[in-house]
Amino acid sequence: MTKQIKGIAASNGVAIAKAYKLEDPDLSFDTRTIDDVQAEKSRLEAAFLESKADLEQIRDKAAASMGEDEAEVFNAHIMVLEDPEFTGGIEQAIDNDKTNAEAAVKQVSDTYITMFESMADTNAYMAERAADIRDVTKRVMSHLLNKTLPNPALINEEVVIVAHDMTPSDTAQLDRKYVKGFITDVGGRTAHAAIMARTLEIPAIVGTENATAEIAEDEVVILDGMDGVLLQNPTDDEIKTYQEKADEYAAKKAEWAKLKDEKTLSADGKHFTLGANIGTPKDLDGVVENGAEGVGLYRTEFLYMDSQELPTEEQQFEAYKAVLEGVGPDENVTVRTMDIGGDKELPYLPLPEEENPFLGYRAIRISLDRQDIFRTQLRALIRASAFGNLWIMFPMVATLSEFRQARDLFEEEKAKLVAEGVEVSDNIKLGIMIEIPAAAVLADKFAQEVDFFSIGTNDLIGYSMAADRGNDKISYLYQPYNPSILRLVNYVIKSAHKYGKFAAMCGEMAGDPIAVPILMGMGLDEFSMSATSVLSTRSLMSRLNAADLEGLAEKAIDAETNEDVIALVKAEVPEAE
Amino acid sequence: MTKQIKGIAASNGVAIAKAYKLEDPDLSFDTRTIDDVQAEKSRLEAAFLESKADLEQIRDKAAASMGEDEAEVFNAHIMVLEDPEFTGGIEQAIDNDKTNAEAAVKQVSDTYITMFESMADTNAYMAERAADIRDVTKRVMSHLLNKTLPNPALINEEVVIVAHDMTPSDTAQLDRKYVKGFITDVGGRTAHAAIMARTLEIPAIVGTENATAEIAEDEVVILDGMDGVLLQNPTDDEIKTYQEKADEYAAKKAEWAKLKDEKTLSADGKHFTLGANIGTPKDLDGVVENGAEGVGLYRTEFLYMDSQELPTEEQQFEAYKAVLEGVGPDENVTVRTMDIGGDKELPYLPLPEEENPFLGYRAIRISLDRQDIFRTQLRALIRASAFGNLWIMFPMVATLSEFRQARDLFEEEKAKLVAEGVEVSDNIKLGIMIEIPAAAVLADKFAQEVDFFSIGTNDLIGYSMAADRGNDKISYLYQPYNPSILRLVNYVIKSAHKYGKFAAMCGEMAGDPIAVPILMGMGLDEFSMSATSVLSTRSLMSRLNAADLEGLAEKAIDAETNEDVIALVKAEVPEAE
Repeated sequence: MTKQIKGIAASNGVAIAKAYKLEDPDLSFDTRTIDDVQAEKSRLEAAFLESKADLEQIRDKAAASMGEDEAEVFNAHIMVLEDPEFTGGIEQAIDNDKTNAEAAVKQVSDTYITMFESMADTNAYMAERAADIRDVTKRVMSHLLNKTLPNPALINEEVVIVAHDMTPSDTAQLDRKYVKGFITDVGGRTAHAAIMARTLEIPAIVGTENATAEIAEDEVVILDGMDGVLLQNPTDDEIKTYQEKADEYAAKKAEWAKLKDEKTLSADGKHFTLGANIGTPKDLDGVVENGAEGVGLYRTEFLYMDSQELPTEEQQFEAYKAVLEGVGPDENVTVRTMDIGGDKELPYLPLPEEENPFLGYRAIRISLDRQDIFRTQLRALIRASAFGNLWIMFPMVATLSEFRQARDLFEEEKAKLVAEGVEVSDNIKLGIMIEIPAAAVLADKFAQEVDFFSIGTNDLIGYSMAADRGNDKISYLYQPYNPSILRLVNYVIKSAHKYGKFAAMCGEMAGDPIAVPILMGMGLDEFSMSATSVLSTRSLMSRLNAADLEGLAEKAIDAETNEDVIALVKAEVPEAE
Repeated sequence: MTKQIKGIAASNGVAIAKAYKLEDPDLSFDTRTIDDVQAEKSRLEAAFLESKADLEQIRDKAAASMGEDEAEVFNAHIMVLEDPEFTGGIEQAIDNDKTNAEAAVKQVSDTYITMFESMADTNAYMAERAADIRDVTKRVMSHLLNKTLPNPALINEEVVIVAHDMTPSDTAQLDRKYVKGFITDVGGRTAHAAIMARTLEIPAIVGTENATAEIAEDEVVILDGMDGVLLQNPTDDEIKTYQEKADEYAAKKAEWAKLKDEKTLSADGKHFTLGANIGTPKDLDGVVENGAEGVGLYRTEFLYMDSQELPTEEQQFEAYKAVLEGVGPDENVTVRTMDIGGDKELPYLPLPEEENPFLGYRAIRISLDRQDIFRTQLRALIRASAFGNLWIMFPMVATLSEFRQARDLFEEEKAKLVAEGVEVSDNIKLGIMIEIPAAAVLADKFAQEVDFFSIGTNDLIGYSMAADRGNDKISYLYQPYNPSILRLVNYVIKSAHKYGKFAAMCGEMAGDPIAVPILMGMGLDEFSMSATSVLSTRSLMSRLNAADLEGLAEKAIDAETNEDVIALVKAEVPEAE
């Protein structure tokens, strides 16, 4: 029987290709005393030249497939190789210590890395320098030891990547033309690698535990990202079957593409808004390409994280304005104020060490404490409001008092700007993220004071279940369909509607085919998701009768377990595959 | 005007006495080269003798006031001073390095501490050895430097202790005869120091931030543990006023004492059960002295934490049997199965490093994963059930599936014991802690399968608010009266009653005078608390009409904020001071 590896289905599609293992070779070495200093320096020089040739090739490749911006990191690597202080230091170590080139490279690079990292707390640029030195050293070392480093950017045939994990810099190098899918040992559906796979629209399986151990380089594999199964060395019949499955999926995608400029309507004609979640103005391309109806979540923390210091009011204003102008004239942009803390740190804003950062000083808690930072963001937002339909929401609100404080600060800054004669919209909507159980339970009270809710399901599930979704030991507790979660979601939606307010959702769940029919039945107004999920969701919705789903939603919130709800939806809504 | 320091009211009562600052002196020193080795060794010997004399005095004092067990730690310290390897090592360092005694002591003790600590991960005994060496070294050093260490065990006049924080070993040395109260810079109402103060029944204020900076040694202070206020150098009038307040409180306590053998009845004759929370069989004394009606929470993790290895079935059986036999024949003992993880570690059971341990692998999650450990505990409990009225509850249950798994394991072990001919009760009750929001929200489903609930408010509040109560930066979010929390509590109680089940509470809130009237109005069946809170709660309940409180509970769950609820209770229930 063909060997199978099972994992978490992380991104839809089918790939059939050779395995490419993205694993670092063993770069350990012995420290030796050498006699011929000159010969050792020549070895070093050769390794530097070869490394530089690699990097130039990778850079050109990356620039061609992904653009100059993405390729910039490799120019930084080349500059390290050309830095006379770095090379001179290594040569000097060979001279003085009569040591082999490997040991000299390691000694000097360790010194640099330690130095840069000691400065990294106050300067994000230094952390990047340390990462650059680490990358370049690895490459030089591989040439000294005659080992081959994997160069995902240089892949020039169709492959399925097999890796322990995929880092952001790994995924940045992927060329969709050749990389047909990937499978990793670790991670879950909401980890970085999985989200990237869905963004790049390549099939992926994560959290297999043993993919790197089981799969050999170059063996042919079939990766089914729908079912989370990989087949090793498949038979011809299997290849044929899966080729059909791949074709079916491609046909479905072509169908979806036709819906790009359509409104989102259920089979019985009810309209739902399908928004996109974005991190930077650059993501607007995807919003437009996938026909999303506005931005349901603009995560402003990237403005703060991608910077060496607090972004100025002007910088923020430009970014917010760009996003507001980038969507259609009738479409909204929902901007979430700074959600720092938890696992998101700013190099220039030291946060306290915390035992449980997810239960700590973060998001609105920081904003209300550091009003200097918060007022700057509010001013930039209010100024940008003249350029579109701006909705502002506050993350991690637990109590009414917190919302009232945030609203008061907003009103103060707005009044000041108006007094200064700045043009501002008089129709800015103010809302909150519902991601803390206490806020969901008190939604009827909040609904009397906010303009809208946006349910952040990732955190809401985590707090409601008391389970960190990044923790593999208890990943079984990430249960989006658990009736307790569905009850909270339903109560939030019903409370909003009771007071004529708008209910949105911007977590993973909003684009999940099992959850969508239930949420339609509950009457959720807006579903905001990765841009790449918009069209498949629009297609699914168009095949469902919204009125019929009310009964489904009622049964789901009266069910007992997560599994019961999955079985219920599969039985009653065959369209939700 | 008399200067005041405000903090968190942590334990009731009034103290008027001199301030005693529990602060370590500056023990820094210069490393010197010495000429007269013999003179240096004599200095060392003198310091050792003085230290030993101190420790013998402290030990005798501690044994007399608190018992031989509590004094045992000081014998361990004396043994360090008598250890020839330790003293010999220091003398040798003086000989070899010609260094002063301070430097030699530090060098040798650091070596020991490092060695013991490196073994501490696998052996809890070694961690204690390291702590002993640290304590003893501090004492020897103080004599070498002619500084005075604070010796709380030697206090022989009435004082109010002023400290940055109180560690468990600090509180173990307190003699209630002389220590009339304490005030600390850090901590909250649920921190160790605050809980100890209530157990010892001495007034306390915590979390002042500046008590140690503001208060001078020996100045007279008034500490009001009811209002969380300390007055510095009070006037005679103030002393008179507070003396009256102290007398009033003493009179009230005398009234309460009369209720010791009474049932707990509201003014209109409704019975509530007042249980006590305990950690070990030794705590039974307090249960009986304070007239608690059984044990509402027996925290079995101390059995695991106070041990060098997993406690055997036999050891556990003996402990459970002792507790079951220690309460009245009609009273129940509710035993919570192992609640390890979060901030509770076992030296012999390495747990994974976690980013957010409170949202991690803990309690029932470990028990279901490590069935070997769990089955042993269940067997010990089932065997002990023959000796009293045993209720078993599982901590940190989030889903019905988890409860069902735990129940199945219980049934399996019970069937095996019955088959082995062991006598077991056929009336063991099985329940769950309600401390995870998801379980509270689904209480109606759980109520159809469990025998009882026990609401653990500390964690329930923490998860519902997404706030770690140990984190000072966000302590404002520990809001027991927030209507969201009250709604969850009310839903749990009503769901239990709908299916004829029993609803208890074993968190801090159950003994809180603001919460008690609301909980009576909701119909909570059992209130379990620190034994020392039982009599004041019984007294409060006896003055309230349960029927009148239903309306209060309804208003509270319909309020908007924590502050609103406090104001509501104060307005409607003047008895709840």
